[in-house]
Amino acid sequence: MFPTRLEEVQREVSAALAEAIAAQPSAPLRDAMGYAAQGGKRLRAFLVLESAALFGIPAAQAMPAAAGVEALHAYSLVHDDLPCMDDDDLRRGQPTVHVKWDEATAVLAGDALQTLAFELCADPALGDHRIDLVLALARASGAAGMVHGQMLDIAAETAAAPLTLAEITRLQDGKTGALISFAAQAGAILAGADRAPLAAYAGALGLAFQIADDILDVVGSEETAGKRLHKDAGAGKATFVSLLGLEGARRRAADLVAEAEAALAPYGEKAETLRAAARYVIARDR
Amino acid sequence: MFPTRLEEVQREVSAALAEAIAAQPSAPLRDAMGYAAQGGKRLRAFLVLESAALFGIPAAQAMPAAAGVEALHAYSLVHDDLPCMDDDDLRRGQPTVHVKWDEATAVLAGDALQTLAFELCADPALGDHRIDLVLALARASGAAGMVHGQMLDIAAETAAAPLTLAEITRLQDGKTGALISFAAQAGAILAGADRAPLAAYAGALGLAFQIADDILDVVGSEETAGKRLHKDAGAGKATFVSLLGLEGARRRAADLVAEAEAALAPYGEKAETLRAAARYVIARDR
Repeated sequence: MFPTRLEEVQREVSAALAEAIAAQPSAPLRDAMGYAAQGGKRLRAFLVLESAALFGIPAAQAMPAAAGVEALHAYSLVHDDLPCMDDDDLRRGQPTVHVKWDEATAVLAGDALQTLAFELCADPALGDHRIDLVLALARASGAAGMVHGQMLDIAAETAAAPLTLAEITRLQDGKTGALISFAAQAGAILAGADRAPLAAYAGALGLAFQIADDILDVVGSEETAGKRLHKDAGAGKATFVSLLGLEGARRRAADLVAEAEAALAPYGEKAETLRAAARYVIARDR
Repeated sequence: MFPTRLEEVQREVSAALAEAIAAQPSAPLRDAMGYAAQGGKRLRAFLVLESAALFGIPAAQAMPAAAGVEALHAYSLVHDDLPCMDDDDLRRGQPTVHVKWDEATAVLAGDALQTLAFELCADPALGDHRIDLVLALARASGAAGMVHGQMLDIAAETAAAPLTLAEITRLQDGKTGALISFAAQAGAILAGADRAPLAAYAGALGLAFQIADDILDVVGSEETAGKRLHKDAGAGKATFVSLLGLEGARRRAADLVAEAEAALAPYGEKAETLRAAARYVIARDR
């Protein structure tokens, strides 16, 4: 069942990540990295492990990649929360790294988590195609992917007019879509198989995920979400909800989930947990 | 001749790096990355290309790794110059990235330059051993290498007592030594050859480099160096010069250069430009 499998993944990936971080020699850095890497939904790790399972790659073998994508995600959150960026004080229900330590520690812990992500994705256990995984992670997370989206997000805050639907879609496609897409394709990459069906699944899934995030920002509970909400409307930022309305956003997200499920047709029954993951993405409360 | 070869490398690596950055889709990010990646001695790129040449790997083939190590170095400088870190306003003779743009752009440009470094080191042109290069870069630059050294450097600023010689050596071994060592071993890694002689060369070279930096901080010209100098004494920071005296530091650096040259004995005449590079490291004025 999907929720049980997600909880298993959360435990296993958190343990793998904690172990990789515990091996680092720098005490304060190690503490801040471990703190930043704990908690979270582990959706990206789940996508890595389940897409690997589609191609017969066992979870134990794909684990470094699953831990790697979560290290990458954790780095992006630490830097995104910095005072010069989104200036957030709460993340995953805890004070952010720069609040608990200081800004210099947050910059360096984020930097080291990015490096760790690449180290984990180059782990020999991942087999002969891991160099392609490294390349795909770089393309998804750098100036052509996630960081591009973050830059557009920052530019949007000082833009003269709110973004259009096309502009928000492009922004989110980088900011959250690229890494989710990487995670969902990881299994095919490691197997040296065709990535197209998983890329189609992930494209729809990533956008549904972000629309759900915008809906959560309006209707969610800060206590359950573990982060500050209701920031977008206050800042006058355009979101999928402000552009489509709450009901319109819900309909669009549901359509995208159906699209994501349909893209998995080539894998038949084997892809059932990935279909359940798509449904979870718009049903979640954090 | 060494200075001619270094100038060639500076031109070629700067062009390769500019080309890789120009391919990024995000205009402001691309501009800030390109700005941060220009100039510099390109010593690390030189070490990559010359160590590759020892094993018959042509410069054109090793170029992505040379550009990659300079992208990594540029990222570390952008983040190191941030107000929450060393708070520097001048680098390579120009305003630092957060002065010319803003802090958010500097954080993101640094992040994207780190990602680009891994993308470049995973470039297919580098051949079958490039996965080992990716792993070596991660180990040299992350929480067990360069970022570890930066964390020790920041901790030293608030430490009750100035650092001892052993502590400074350990700090610099991470902060500058690890990446120089990576660069000097890159050729052996790409060739799948024994790294030991180049590791010994690089260990002595990296330490000599840092002692020379400390000497420059005392006797150098800001105009020639292109960065702020005379900061260490003002901050009461222990350096190799404060611990060994100016003459003692010069003697130690010269001994290390002799040690570095001797480590190259297995390569005979072929390693002459690498020997010249070691002599340059303590003779340079920037």
